[in-house]
Amino acid sequence: MPKAKPKPKISARAKTKNTAAHSRAQRAVSKHAAAKLELQYVPWRAIPLENLNPSLQRQFVVGQEIMLARVLLKKGCVVPEHSHHNEQLTYILEGALKFWIDGKEIVVNAGEVLCIPADMPHKAEAVEDTVDLDVFTPPRADWINKTDQYLRGRR
Amino acid sequence: MPKAKPKPKISARAKTKNTAAHSRAQRAVSKHAAAKLELQYVPWRAIPLENLNPSLQRQFVVGQEIMLARVLLKKGCVVPEHSHHNEQLTYILEGALKFWIDGKEIVVNAGEVLCIPADMPHKAEAVEDTVDLDVFTPPRADWINKTDQYLRGRR
Repeated sequence: MPKAKPKPKISARAKTKNTAAHSRAQRAVSKHAAAKLELQYVPWRAIPLENLNPSLQRQFVVGQEIMLARVLLKKGCVVPEHSHHNEQLTYILEGALKFWIDGKEIVVNAGEVLCIPADMPHKAEAVEDTVDLDVFTPPRADWINKTDQYLRGRR
Repeated sequence: MPKAKPKPKISARAKTKNTAAHSRAQRAVSKHAAAKLELQYVPWRAIPLENLNPSLQRQFVVGQEIMLARVLLKKGCVVPEHSHHNEQLTYILEGALKFWIDGKEIVVNAGEVLCIPADMPHKAEAVEDTVDLDVFTPPRADWINKTDQYLRGRR
């Protein structure tokens, strides 16, 4: 009599779901990886704004090692503390963001830049309605494959 | 009698000059390298605009692997064809740049982005007075150590 299969710790359905999610993420990354060596001409108006939560919208362009994101934050929007291995450079085009970073509170206004080393934890809050450019290297895989739960569904 | 020194192929003065220039370049790169692992808060107004030629001004912020430059071009300013190993992403904030790149002519207007792979030759001309953001990875050593002769002293 064949040995009964051990009960899987993850249900078959959850496993399928996870595998599908993983495949979607892989395809998303591969799609960007495929585009990376080609010249890309991209008007921002051609990229749909992604609604992450009622106070936060985002769109981005991904190259081989660079990601440029345009992030729209409504006044009061909080980006909770997080860190990532990607180096970040933030340039505020309109409005102002208050950062909690490196033991300090820094308000970055329009026309100002914050260069955040890899792995440095940071939190931010929009002091007013804000248009923020974020540059990352390497590109944020969690933004590309939509696993950035820390930004989703919050106010 | 000691053997006469062979005549140097490069004059001592030129050699000293070259060594001094090299040291300056090294110091410039080291200064940026030293800053790279620290948080940097940089208002653009705190960075002097460098006058490269009568039609071209520039300022930049350098992180570890990212450089963000703000480039001001007067109408008619030509950036001659060149290429570099650095990946480039250009975002036009105001005005318009016409590019000759990848066998095509592309006018990049305000609100539009061009993502230029490493080593792809490109030339550009300002169709009108233009404010251009350029992102590079890695940072442009020739911009940091001022060996970017292709941009200097031209109209």
